[in-house]
Amino acid sequence: MKHVISAKSFSRDALESLLSVAGEMRLIQARGGADLLSRKVMAALFFEPSTRTRLSFETAMLRLNGRVVSTENAKEFSSAVKGETLEDTIRVVAGYADVIVLRHPEIGAAARAADVSSIPVLSAGDGAGEHPTQALLDMFTILTEVGRLDDLTVTLVGDLLYGRTVHSLVYLLSLFRGVRIVCTAPESIPLPADVIAYAEARGVHVSFEPDLARAAAKADVLYQTRVQKERFPSVEHYEALRSKYVIDARILDKLPARSIIMHPLPRAGEIDPVVDRDARAAYFRQSHYGVPVRMAVLKECLTTD
Amino acid sequence: MKHVISAKSFSRDALESLLSVAGEMRLIQARGGADLLSRKVMAALFFEPSTRTRLSFETAMLRLNGRVVSTENAKEFSSAVKGETLEDTIRVVAGYADVIVLRHPEIGAAARAADVSSIPVLSAGDGAGEHPTQALLDMFTILTEVGRLDDLTVTLVGDLLYGRTVHSLVYLLSLFRGVRIVCTAPESIPLPADVIAYAEARGVHVSFEPDLARAAAKADVLYQTRVQKERFPSVEHYEALRSKYVIDARILDKLPARSIIMHPLPRAGEIDPVVDRDARAAYFRQSHYGVPVRMAVLKECLTTD
Amino acid sequence: MKHVISAKSFSRDALESLLSVAGEMRLIQARGGADLLSRKVMAALFFEPSTRTRLSFETAMLRLNGRVVSTENAKEFSSAVKGETLEDTIRVVAGYADVIVLRHPEIGAAARAADVSSIPVLSAGDGAGEHPTQALLDMFTILTEVGRLDDLTVTLVGDLLYGRTVHSLVYLLSLFRGVRIVCTAPESIPLPADVIAYAEARGVHVSFEPDLARAAAKADVLYQTRVQKERFPSVEHYEALRSKYVIDARILDKLPARSIIMHPLPRAGEIDPVVDRDARAAYFRQSHYGVPVRMAVLKECLTTD
Repeated sequence: MKHVISAKSFSRDALESLLSVAGEMRLIQARGGADLLSRKVMAALFFEPSTRTRLSFETAMLRLNGRVVSTENAKEFSSAVKGETLEDTIRVVAGYADVIVLRHPEIGAAARAADVSSIPVLSAGDGAGEHPTQALLDMFTILTEVGRLDDLTVTLVGDLLYGRTVHSLVYLLSLFRGVRIVCTAPESIPLPADVIAYAEARGVHVSFEPDLARAAAKADVLYQTRVQKERFPSVEHYEALRSKYVIDARILDKLPARSIIMHPLPRAGEIDPVVDRDARAAYFRQSHYGVPVRMAVLKECLTTD
Repeated sequence: MKHVISAKSFSRDALESLLSVAGEMRLIQARGGADLLSRKVMAALFFEPSTRTRLSFETAMLRLNGRVVSTENAKEFSSAVKGETLEDTIRVVAGYADVIVLRHPEIGAAARAADVSSIPVLSAGDGAGEHPTQALLDMFTILTEVGRLDDLTVTLVGDLLYGRTVHSLVYLLSLFRGVRIVCTAPESIPLPADVIAYAEARGVHVSFEPDLARAAAKADVLYQTRVQKERFPSVEHYEALRSKYVIDARILDKLPARSIIMHPLPRAGEIDPVVDRDARAAYFRQSHYGVPVRMAVLKECLTTD
Repeated sequence: MKHVISAKSFSRDALESLLSVAGEMRLIQARGGADLLSRKVMAALFFEPSTRTRLSFETAMLRLNGRVVSTENAKEFSSAVKGETLEDTIRVVAGYADVIVLRHPEIGAAARAADVSSIPVLSAGDGAGEHPTQALLDMFTILTEVGRLDDLTVTLVGDLLYGRTVHSLVYLLSLFRGVRIVCTAPESIPLPADVIAYAEARGVHVSFEPDLARAAAKADVLYQTRVQKERFPSVEHYEALRSKYVIDARILDKLPARSIIMHPLPRAGEIDPVVDRDARAAYFRQSHYGVPVRMAVLKECLTTD
């Protein structure tokens, strides 16, 4: 039984193997699906809404002919309202389904669920904690679009402090050789020291480049993130930060021809729509890769050979 | 690829062909279903609740052995809350599913979605705009219950101003010969001039009959609608309008033996429950025809032969 | 056609037959499922949230390869918001699906639905009324874990006044011989007189034992319930009642070796977590039995042989 709780738990071999299965899943997806999980039921327990992630996981299960039961948000989760612990909820649902996909607003919720679950728990994000399948689909995007995971320059842009997506991505990039991470972030929302230390301890070169155009010129991957309004004391402060790092036609001019632009989405102004028409704009394809990657994760945790 | 956005886009041939497929779908439905869409996924994106329409579309997809992912209401649509545009949401979901069913509170939303979607978009209603599959099931009801679509007298009753269902129905009726539309509506909520002009330009005879009993006596189809409380300045005003046009035993007495009573439902007092027992009360059967009609729409947009 | 509205409607033969089918369903569940309901659609209409019950019913349907359409809560049920009666909603949905599972906050709602439905209606709880499939899974739990349904001492603990689960259970226990029901409840929330009269008229011996330890010592089944905070005038009153009857290590010491502890869940402090590790703690297994029991109910109402 294999829980997926943290990007940190993957070895390079395990990750490469999973991405290889995801590649096969893309072919299956192109045919509409396959009967690999016909007798399996996935329970999607979303204690807070995350429509995109939920639909992606559910589609992945359905493409493998699995079945899905689902709950959209915490307020609907009636037993929690009545004072039930997360652990009790998991103990009950583990007797219904074959795998649980859990989204929860509290850090550590996924690990607590895995501790008491008799079936695999796949984290779909736990508060400011991790969002491991997002990091997996990010790696699959880089592999598919850039063609390699070693010897890469990945420029992280925007909110590197609160953006958990970026932290999980750094953990996975740290498994590879010759990785250079460039941080292009406002001073108030930098990449946390422990994330930097984790990467550097594994041979990643971490540097800082406050100028977005200069950073773009050297990037294999320009990874943009959304600055979240709710993190800042005033609208002015937020607008100042947000408008500082917008990817537009000028930045596109600097970006090498074979590089790609990624974004975990949703976006809210930090990528100019004019960029969408450029072939290097990979962010919508990136979101689509979530389906084959989650098909791979589901297949791996629900089948034995 | 065929979007379904407006009743106006159907030709007579296309409509007749679709209704013929819907007839076949009724037979398939009677057997429980068929395997026509086994490898297809429908995404039901409901930015406002419409339970009846959603369940009807989902049932249609499931009866064809398709798969469904679904979101019930806008508040749950978390990326929209974070500032994502409808267009970006559609671009993402178009990479998950094979067809999108979209319900949205804003006029024109379905057309905007179709503009950016790489997969078919079926409108399930956009605000005060259109609700094309409701009009299709209305036409299927008339064809099935009255036996023809030419040479018909259709009496529209109640709120003809805000009732978008009625507008879409008029567009489709305008494709046929010898159609007479009789308007039995309070003066403050008449059929809009542009809808009348559309119909008359296509040879429909439009007339006005403020007396419901007299209108019923000449109707092949008596199409009742709900007067929406929220449209009126006072409860008294609303009650006065609503109680003016109630179909009851007295109206039933005037209605010809082979005519039918339709209503898009839900109703709220404008049809007396005593009418339900009469064979001419077609409104519940009408709601049931939504499933084979939507099966036909899904089959047509998802299969090629 | 067989509605399931009240535990009172079961004969001993019908119940034993159903529990026998549930036993077969456990084997099918252990294999992941079977194709018994491939062409059937279940509509889960939840006018109030009950996640556990909904997921259990949906999983049961999916394990039999049936299809599910679902609505999570009343606020989403848009036609009800527009003034539609429950009866009209049922008349519409009965034309979509093959079986309706109905959860509703009002007593008698399930019976009203069954009155107008052309397809089976299965109650998933109606307000302070009954919750018949919970009682069925309770009986299945006792049969599976204790090995018999005659000659049993069942001790009911906690809120016996508002706990509808307990009432439905008493109705079903009354079908068997040599049943002794012991009530261990605070004076303000006793088993209602009409429930006691129902049981005694059918030969059940009903007694009262305010001391939980003494009651446990004689119980084959110790059935704990949650005291609902919202029932009491003050938090102090609630806390006093709740803390009076907690199953903990001390109670466990008194409980016979082959007895079991049951609880309809969720719990909120009335069973010490230390009890979970004891083999006699049957409450999570009890919740799991809901799936095969509901599989049996669905199979019985949707197949003819």
